[in-house]
Amino acid sequence: MRGLLTLRSLSVPEIMDIIDLAIRFKKGLTVNYSGKKMVNLFYENSTRTQYSFQIAMMNLGIQPLSFNLAGSSVAKGETLYDTVRTFEALGVDGIVIRHKQDVFYKELETIKVPIFNGGDGTSDHPTQTLLDLMTIYEEFGRFQGLKICLVGDIRHSRVAHGNAEVMKRLGMEVYISGPPEFCDDTGKFLPLDKAIKVCDIINLLRVQMERHEEEMKISKEEYHQKWGMTIQRVGAMKRGAIIMHPAPINRGVEIASEVAECVSSRIYKQIENGVYIRMAVISMALEGKL
Amino acid sequence: MRGLLTLRSLSVPEIMDIIDLAIRFKKGLTVNYSGKKMVNLFYENSTRTQYSFQIAMMNLGIQPLSFNLAGSSVAKGETLYDTVRTFEALGVDGIVIRHKQDVFYKELETIKVPIFNGGDGTSDHPTQTLLDLMTIYEEFGRFQGLKICLVGDIRHSRVAHGNAEVMKRLGMEVYISGPPEFCDDTGKFLPLDKAIKVCDIINLLRVQMERHEEEMKISKEEYHQKWGMTIQRVGAMKRGAIIMHPAPINRGVEIASEVAECVSSRIYKQIENGVYIRMAVISMALEGKL
Amino acid sequence: MRGLLTLRSLSVPEIMDIIDLAIRFKKGLTVNYSGKKMVNLFYENSTRTQYSFQIAMMNLGIQPLSFNLAGSSVAKGETLYDTVRTFEALGVDGIVIRHKQDVFYKELETIKVPIFNGGDGTSDHPTQTLLDLMTIYEEFGRFQGLKICLVGDIRHSRVAHGNAEVMKRLGMEVYISGPPEFCDDTGKFLPLDKAIKVCDIINLLRVQMERHEEEMKISKEEYHQKWGMTIQRVGAMKRGAIIMHPAPINRGVEIASEVAECVSSRIYKQIENGVYIRMAVISMALEGKL
Repeated sequence: MRGLLTLRSLSVPEIMDIIDLAIRFKKGLTVNYSGKKMVNLFYENSTRTQYSFQIAMMNLGIQPLSFNLAGSSVAKGETLYDTVRTFEALGVDGIVIRHKQDVFYKELETIKVPIFNGGDGTSDHPTQTLLDLMTIYEEFGRFQGLKICLVGDIRHSRVAHGNAEVMKRLGMEVYISGPPEFCDDTGKFLPLDKAIKVCDIINLLRVQMERHEEEMKISKEEYHQKWGMTIQRVGAMKRGAIIMHPAPINRGVEIASEVAECVSSRIYKQIENGVYIRMAVISMALEGKL
Repeated sequence: MRGLLTLRSLSVPEIMDIIDLAIRFKKGLTVNYSGKKMVNLFYENSTRTQYSFQIAMMNLGIQPLSFNLAGSSVAKGETLYDTVRTFEALGVDGIVIRHKQDVFYKELETIKVPIFNGGDGTSDHPTQTLLDLMTIYEEFGRFQGLKICLVGDIRHSRVAHGNAEVMKRLGMEVYISGPPEFCDDTGKFLPLDKAIKVCDIINLLRVQMERHEEEMKISKEEYHQKWGMTIQRVGAMKRGAIIMHPAPINRGVEIASEVAECVSSRIYKQIENGVYIRMAVISMALEGKL
Repeated sequence: MRGLLTLRSLSVPEIMDIIDLAIRFKKGLTVNYSGKKMVNLFYENSTRTQYSFQIAMMNLGIQPLSFNLAGSSVAKGETLYDTVRTFEALGVDGIVIRHKQDVFYKELETIKVPIFNGGDGTSDHPTQTLLDLMTIYEEFGRFQGLKICLVGDIRHSRVAHGNAEVMKRLGMEVYISGPPEFCDDTGKFLPLDKAIKVCDIINLLRVQMERHEEEMKISKEEYHQKWGMTIQRVGAMKRGAIIMHPAPINRGVEIASEVAECVSSRIYKQIENGVYIRMAVISMALEGKL
């Protein structure tokens, strides 16, 4: 199986190669794969990842098919494998998949066309991790020794799990903070007000209210007060520290509305960098390097 | 905020510039914005406006993203502002929006990428107004002194409200006709059978049956007989007068089926002109003129 | 009305012309209709047909519009005719339609833009029939004298009805097999175990479980045992015989999972050939030959 399924199987130099290429695309490098076609198969809702991949394809001269789950044979019960096998037979040059099942790509092992993981269950979201790394690298010029705190719903977050694994390998110190019921062993726990004093990066996570409103034992207001990034907390941050968030953001819950666009926020830079990261992984896969 | 939000803030010469450019596109003018990308964000159903914008983009060499509301983060509760801000960060060159909220663009004031209003609530639908004006201009070569009657559900119609405001400024006489519960002060009321005798343009409006079937105190048949454009009424029209309708049409309600394609109907010409108008506004926005 | 509505009105030489052109496209022929635009109007779910047409357009340099039924005016009640008439007025160069109504195109007689039937009710699916014929022709180099057995839900299958009509004209012997409640007079009935011994092609049909689970008086397991293509049955097939299926397949119902990708299966070749068939019919229509 080719493409990008997880960063867990890539070495640090391989990861750095992707980030370097993304930075070159950002600086103006152009490549044209005119005549190629790719498709986005999103079994879960997405704006950023889905359209970022679509724009990345366009920037590379690749034509994106507009797959609409609701009007497809998936509605007739066609499996993920059969849908992917069909697009392979139709002649697409790459397939991006988001699916709620952890490690969905295990059943796609015999597929020859490159597959790009756009998020699997609560396990991984490799292009999100890469764009986070690119944003950190642009900011600090290194990873070694940087302290990051993942804040919020760690347990259900593929971003938290995916990021922590790679960041540790890159020499970063990974901490976590958030309501006890949302914490796991992804990193060492720090009280939020401690974390903002010592960390270089506060990586907020989305409170997935649509998934577990019941599980969350506190109100949005209480969450905001206890675990949200308020203007006061921004003021207490370590000098030069930045705020990241994979978005969509819940204003007034994990982040105060005005903090999202404050000078320490890199949220929109992350979105921008996502396009270059996706250009890089697509390009490397089409060149046989992924 | 750039783009085209409402015609209320444009002067008559500015409006004429758009129509002139649209006519030049219709006559064969070509411009190529290859490498540009735009997205349609339609929060309300649409065929004509949505695909007319999509085709206009294609005609200009712009790649349209295929945004599907249902599979996006809007389904996770992401706000209009945050969705628009995301597409701006993703690097699109223009955003077309239809939204049920009047003046939805008020909250988008800090957005820098051009925004095109594809219809806001019951307030405005500027590209529809422009294509109506283009169709009238092609027919009569002028606006001054022309009599138009808007017929039907004036009160809930953004087309009626948007058209009336500009048409009055262009020196047209604007009348209205329709069931009392659907009338407002958009124009002077005329009984329909009077209107068809004196007006140059009968601008039918869609009975939005999906919105207020209850509110409408008469049956479809009764509506058709009282306020519908029947073959008989076409026969009684002023010589050289035309019938317009923004569509989708309800055959047998506001218009008899055979009237839709009769010699006085400009309904399909309106649809055709819509593509050129949208090419004009997109092109002017990309050139910094809107 | 132009385009491809049914093969019933095409002569055998006309059908062979389409297959010949498709084979030339498969061998590398390229044609470019840059500047043309087409739209897929799918009123029923589809993966293969819909995206195969989309890819065929892209391969020919035609831009596919991404029509989404759910967000269109169809949701406001706009009829098929009015939707098609609108896209014609918008200037598209071809329209692909799948609709649950048999012979839906009867009401489109005045439309001038080419229409391509992507499946109508239980009546016809001409591009599926053509891709089946192309696959058979590539395999056997002829049609005359070949024995085919359509297996499964004949009665509700547009593929069965469309295929049988043309195959008989091409000199093939058409048999059917399947549960009595699913059989009709499309061909002479053969018990399945007899059919696999004498036929050159076993053309499985999808059990449309979402449509008539109740009507089917047997369980999936029983169906599989009685009418499904099992590994044992593959072993009993006539030497050189092949298995075809329009897909999506129900693994473990009409076909054993391992049979789908066995050496006698042409299921993925059919999907691949579908792209070339659709390129051929689109190209011929744009050249005024259909």
